[in-house]
Amino acid sequence: MTHHVTSMLETYPKDLGDIDRQKLAECIQACFQCAQSCTACADACLAEDMVADLRGCIRRNLDCADVCATTGAVLSRQTGDNLEVTRAVLEACRVACRTCGDECASHAEMHEHCRVCAEACRRCEQACADLLASLG
Amino acid sequence: MTHHVTSMLETYPKDLGDIDRQKLAECIQACFQCAQSCTACADACLAEDMVADLRGCIRRNLDCADVCATTGAVLSRQTGDNLEVTRAVLEACRVACRTCGDECASHAEMHEHCRVCAEACRRCEQACADLLASLG
Amino acid sequence: MTHHVTSMLETYPKDLGDIDRQKLAECIQACFQCAQSCTACADACLAEDMVADLRGCIRRNLDCADVCATTGAVLSRQTGDNLEVTRAVLEACRVACRTCGDECASHAEMHEHCRVCAEACRRCEQACADLLASLG
Amino acid sequence: MTHHVTSMLETYPKDLGDIDRQKLAECIQACFQCAQSCTACADACLAEDMVADLRGCIRRNLDCADVCATTGAVLSRQTGDNLEVTRAVLEACRVACRTCGDECASHAEMHEHCRVCAEACRRCEQACADLLASLG
Repeated sequence: MTHHVTSMLETYPKDLGDIDRQKLAECIQACFQCAQSCTACADACLAEDMVADLRGCIRRNLDCADVCATTGAVLSRQTGDNLEVTRAVLEACRVACRTCGDECASHAEMHEHCRVCAEACRRCEQACADLLASLG
Repeated sequence: MTHHVTSMLETYPKDLGDIDRQKLAECIQACFQCAQSCTACADACLAEDMVADLRGCIRRNLDCADVCATTGAVLSRQTGDNLEVTRAVLEACRVACRTCGDECASHAEMHEHCRVCAEACRRCEQACADLLASLG
Repeated sequence: MTHHVTSMLETYPKDLGDIDRQKLAECIQACFQCAQSCTACADACLAEDMVADLRGCIRRNLDCADVCATTGAVLSRQTGDNLEVTRAVLEACRVACRTCGDECASHAEMHEHCRVCAEACRRCEQACADLLASLG
Repeated sequence: MTHHVTSMLETYPKDLGDIDRQKLAECIQACFQCAQSCTACADACLAEDMVADLRGCIRRNLDCADVCATTGAVLSRQTGDNLEVTRAVLEACRVACRTCGDECASHAEMHEHCRVCAEACRRCEQACADLLASLG
């Protein structure tokens, strides 16, 4: 999907400014992937026999999915300067991914979907941190 | 709609803890209303003859609509403690509403939809600030 | 919230055509309320001791919340003719609300949140049907 | 991203039934990619000097992005049988992708972002049709 995100970025008709395009594309991709993984992990947790023990994980998955989807959308927009909002959303996404990644990681040995989802959360958390750092 | 939000809050089967239910209900309502107003304002700006001058307003509207929708969803969940994410999302929502409200307010005399939308943004910004303060 | 939805509709800068504004405003409101109710009902089901018996209800709630949020956003846009998509989305929303309303209604005597949520689903189902009929 | 979607599907703890997993994974991926492309194309259209001529394209992009995001989320859930909603959402997504793809294709020679976005819409339209056909 990075290829698709990059394709769209390259067609933007105005100057993208001095934003790091590689970090931007990776972060957009990581957000959409993490949104998908967290939606699927919430659903897989719901299907587990021990669903009652996974309530906290489902909650974090659902919140993280929503935050990542919004962050991916905000980052996909370049028109009009909205840098303060971009930063605040990236900060929230970093927190959501860290929180959900920690929770999923704690179930990773027992539930394979939590192991895979934790990886998606870690990638997205890192991508948000890298993009934030590059924004200065 | 506060009535509806409150109705759902009152049926929550477990203890809601010491959260201020009135502030929570008002913030959830404000988030959904602001998401609707910003979506409609972006569309009304797009229909204006001077749409080329409203690019920044449309951008802020679209970002604010996404952030408010996510914040309203996160706040509608009480199961599992996810307070750190709740706080980060409220902070991002406050920034998005302030930024969009400022932009819309600057067009309020010329565009009635911006005037009405700015009010929804101000209410949501205040509701987020009040709820954040009550969370301690 | 109908007041807010109507306020934004009244400020639309171009001709709204022959759409029934009252039915449109009611449907937009019903979609946002149902999205909120379904998000909260999924979370309340998750908190129930018998969560394992409510998996199907949580699934329908989550799907219905997503469909209603999208339908509310599509209906909040008037610019550019997109009637075929509007109709298809309203049809999907009607199905999602009927399916979720039926499920919630079947738990209404045991779970008050399902009773309240079923009402929101019924209202939204009806509002979608009424708006669809008025579109011709 | 198909790899990521497939990874999550493979970890689902219960029987996935007789759904065609390859078609499901491709459709989920296509929905998330199309949601991203349409969000970016709406923004790129907004940045064009001739934005006033692209109002209809922006509208279709925004609607298609919302419908694809919802469809991708619904398809990412397997718990509880919700086949009727799945079908209705896939139908709506097919219509949204066809409508947006047609509009973008009509600007493809002039705007590269519309050309790339039209491809994403076509892929998603086809993936929805293929999955629908396989559902019987």
